[in-house]
Amino acid sequence: MGKLTRHNWRSKLHELIYEADTPSGKIFDLVLMFTIIASIILVMLESVKAIDERFHQLLNISEWIITILFSLEYIARIVSVRQPIKYILSFYGIIDFLATIPKYLSLIFAGTHALVALRALRLLRIFRILKLARYLGASNNLVKALKASRAKISVFLFAVIIVAIILGTIMYLVEGEKNGFTNIPKSVYWCIVTLTTVGFGDIAPQTPLGQFIAALVMILGYGIIAVPTGIVSAEYTTQVKQPEQPRNPDKIHTNTQSCANCLTEGHQDRAEYCHICGYKLHHD
Amino acid sequence: MGKLTRHNWRSKLHELIYEADTPSGKIFDLVLMFTIIASIILVMLESVKAIDERFHQLLNISEWIITILFSLEYIARIVSVRQPIKYILSFYGIIDFLATIPKYLSLIFAGTHALVALRALRLLRIFRILKLARYLGASNNLVKALKASRAKISVFLFAVIIVAIILGTIMYLVEGEKNGFTNIPKSVYWCIVTLTTVGFGDIAPQTPLGQFIAALVMILGYGIIAVPTGIVSAEYTTQVKQPEQPRNPDKIHTNTQSCANCLTEGHQDRAEYCHICGYKLHHD
Amino acid sequence: MGKLTRHNWRSKLHELIYEADTPSGKIFDLVLMFTIIASIILVMLESVKAIDERFHQLLNISEWIITILFSLEYIARIVSVRQPIKYILSFYGIIDFLATIPKYLSLIFAGTHALVALRALRLLRIFRILKLARYLGASNNLVKALKASRAKISVFLFAVIIVAIILGTIMYLVEGEKNGFTNIPKSVYWCIVTLTTVGFGDIAPQTPLGQFIAALVMILGYGIIAVPTGIVSAEYTTQVKQPEQPRNPDKIHTNTQSCANCLTEGHQDRAEYCHICGYKLHHD
Amino acid sequence: MGKLTRHNWRSKLHELIYEADTPSGKIFDLVLMFTIIASIILVMLESVKAIDERFHQLLNISEWIITILFSLEYIARIVSVRQPIKYILSFYGIIDFLATIPKYLSLIFAGTHALVALRALRLLRIFRILKLARYLGASNNLVKALKASRAKISVFLFAVIIVAIILGTIMYLVEGEKNGFTNIPKSVYWCIVTLTTVGFGDIAPQTPLGQFIAALVMILGYGIIAVPTGIVSAEYTTQVKQPEQPRNPDKIHTNTQSCANCLTEGHQDRAEYCHICGYKLHHD
Repeated sequence: MGKLTRHNWRSKLHELIYEADTPSGKIFDLVLMFTIIASIILVMLESVKAIDERFHQLLNISEWIITILFSLEYIARIVSVRQPIKYILSFYGIIDFLATIPKYLSLIFAGTHALVALRALRLLRIFRILKLARYLGASNNLVKALKASRAKISVFLFAVIIVAIILGTIMYLVEGEKNGFTNIPKSVYWCIVTLTTVGFGDIAPQTPLGQFIAALVMILGYGIIAVPTGIVSAEYTTQVKQPEQPRNPDKIHTNTQSCANCLTEGHQDRAEYCHICGYKLHHD
Repeated sequence: MGKLTRHNWRSKLHELIYEADTPSGKIFDLVLMFTIIASIILVMLESVKAIDERFHQLLNISEWIITILFSLEYIARIVSVRQPIKYILSFYGIIDFLATIPKYLSLIFAGTHALVALRALRLLRIFRILKLARYLGASNNLVKALKASRAKISVFLFAVIIVAIILGTIMYLVEGEKNGFTNIPKSVYWCIVTLTTVGFGDIAPQTPLGQFIAALVMILGYGIIAVPTGIVSAEYTTQVKQPEQPRNPDKIHTNTQSCANCLTEGHQDRAEYCHICGYKLHHD
Repeated sequence: MGKLTRHNWRSKLHELIYEADTPSGKIFDLVLMFTIIASIILVMLESVKAIDERFHQLLNISEWIITILFSLEYIARIVSVRQPIKYILSFYGIIDFLATIPKYLSLIFAGTHALVALRALRLLRIFRILKLARYLGASNNLVKALKASRAKISVFLFAVIIVAIILGTIMYLVEGEKNGFTNIPKSVYWCIVTLTTVGFGDIAPQTPLGQFIAALVMILGYGIIAVPTGIVSAEYTTQVKQPEQPRNPDKIHTNTQSCANCLTEGHQDRAEYCHICGYKLHHD
Repeated sequence: MGKLTRHNWRSKLHELIYEADTPSGKIFDLVLMFTIIASIILVMLESVKAIDERFHQLLNISEWIITILFSLEYIARIVSVRQPIKYILSFYGIIDFLATIPKYLSLIFAGTHALVALRALRLLRIFRILKLARYLGASNNLVKALKASRAKISVFLFAVIIVAIILGTIMYLVEGEKNGFTNIPKSVYWCIVTLTTVGFGDIAPQTPLGQFIAALVMILGYGIIAVPTGIVSAEYTTQVKQPEQPRNPDKIHTNTQSCANCLTEGHQDRAEYCHICGYKLHHD
């Protein structure tokens, strides 16, 4: 009986944390999302000197509150799962851990700048909640179109880089160090800035010949932007035209449940046992 | 009899102001459009110091003329409608009011800068006249395509913002304050400037590593512009292919009449009474 | 007999100048094209101070040679046509005249800067020769697609301008004169620079709020570029899909002949007389 | 027997170098690719002063190693082929030669800057290995779409250049030398920078009229980018829709073998003799 009770709160906790179909699961996800966004805003504000100086104490306390919340959630996740090691070593397990520790580390390595990057990683946690989006199917065709055009876009990007290296080298020879093209890597950087039509203007050709080549680079860049657009557009049109309805009869609806034993997701609505490890999904 | 006469000029005024099918209604709309455009040009010119100093008196008088014209129109709109409160509280009623008052307010709060923004709101009045455009059907498919791709474009913009925050934080760590990346919000701003291929150049990476990451950001931005384009393009193609002709037999033509009682629009050509409140549409 | 001979050389000259189907007509067009391009390059080189100072005499002589060639061609065009007044007052007649006179005018109004613009008009003459392109059909679908999407692109551009005025006014209020947004027209200019992702960087927001709004403007501009692209792309796809082959049986081939009497073009291959004025097309 | 043996190692060498289907051929190609990339990185690093000063000796030695490797490969290619002259004068033969000699030339013309460009040509060698890509068919439709839209894109680019020249001349007259538009070629350069939405900002209009025209140029550039995108997108959609499967039954699979006598490629899998010169393909 005692074991069953323990089993009971553990599976309840598991449902609360890992699933998004139940009302309590949805609330948990919403709270988590706002905590993550708040933690990101905190990192951003802290980097602004004027704000940090004025509200240093407040920011510090908020950071501790978020760290403690994340710590509790991390422990709850470990406790509610049957194979904690598997969770800890999973992609999201590592992200969760890294999102939790920066404040603790700052006690040891006081003033280390790089901890900011670690805290920015928290943003990746958003994707965990966005697993919801997957079921909305909003971006299904889009993802398919991107996957279908992946090979072509790679070939395209490869060609862009080769063009940038060759034209960058030519610009380095034409313009030279006195006009800001101090070395080939910098010239290639300028070439990418120009090809992609960003055009910072921190480096700009000064000689007539250099400006002529630059004009060619721009027109080239202006023209080839049509290529990736055309690819995605065409692939996407094809995806839209092959409607998913005819496939639907065979397509079985899956929910946001996640097995408490092996963390597998994508269970069918009628599933009673995990189709990977055979662990019972519902414990009433 | 007296009541009928009064009814008569009120319904005539209503026709003149609210409808665009009659010749006088068209002239009214044209005059209104030019007054609105003139008032906007006035706001713009007044902000140019050299012009304001030389023609201050002229601009002031013109502004008063426009304010009086707008006031008269506002009163006429209230008078000619049967439910003035409904008009006053409607979206266009509020815009009309806000477009009228700035000059009066300037008598009280002399020299308040923010009144300029209030006056710029007048531009929104243009959309009132552009209800004509709705009947041209010129942008029907386009609006449908945009609506159909709204969800996908939101997902896309959300992804862009997450990428900008992560890459902005990395650039802040790589480049640091000495190269203009003074804090994370500014780095994220720079990242958006670069991803969207705007590239002001007021902040530009100086270190080789920063320039390398910047090149990646640019190529990414150059590549992902294909995504919204592909979406709109595909959706629009789909809209164009589903022609509206087959639906036309069932589609009943509506005109620009607006009920003098409840302001409802979209009446059928043969309609004698408002289909919402039953008020008689034509009073001869 | 004498009249016939005169008729003969006149119709030969007409064929040479106005038509592009005969070998001599083709050679004439090629020579004309190179003369036009040479005259444009001359205008450009003359504006470069260093080149003008060194080769002033050479440029001057070349300009006189081109002016004399253009004068001869202009006279030949008048002589060879039966209704000279009609040619002189036609679009191309005026362009030809304006392309010829700048050097003569420079004798009277020595050193007038604006004559440069007149000379740049010569570029428009290129289109006369490019009537060839019309028969290549290369851009037929493209022109149709552009025409079909004209109304939608106008609506789109109108919306862009309204957005630029509203956001420009807001930026003027937020950033103010001290940060370069000296007046509303300049702010609107900045807004267009940003919306179109050009981003000169001569004016850039300095305040955090201004940079936040700027980021929104950029993402908006980055997103809405999809709209015109989507429109043209979809219209063009529709044009390509309606192949012209089935219409070809009814389509009668026309050639580059031009009536020596009324300058009408687009005669059928088998035509003996002008279908507009009844003038005989071939005089052997 | 001796001749056969010699024949044997020559054909083995030929297989190793020219073909990519055998395991050893694949390894050779991989090694070659990394050597080429290493040689390019070397050229880039050498141009960075700080790196060149510190590691000059190391870079020099690496360059010699790569030069010797390329020399050996070049000799092996000549030896293993039956018609060396044909290889030497082929496109890839010349590229291979030019990629090998820069270091030798630097012994004679010490410190010649232009040799850098020669060394950058090595990048072109990558395409030799990428013949593999041809068989992946990844970019087949893309290349076809680009070829089909070549004529239209040329017309488009031609129009862009004419617009740039006319608007550039106008901007030169409006802004003049004092605002950076020192001559027409520079104004045309600025116009291309703006039309293509690059926008360096090294030259920017200062007068209100100039900024107004600039705004028009930008909106024009922003609008016409839709044209090449639309063309490629539509052509590509058409290519995708004409699937290659029905042609497959007739399509005979070819491999990466290259005839040791005449260097012809594209032999069928079952081929025993070269279909061009009749030379035996396999010598066991």
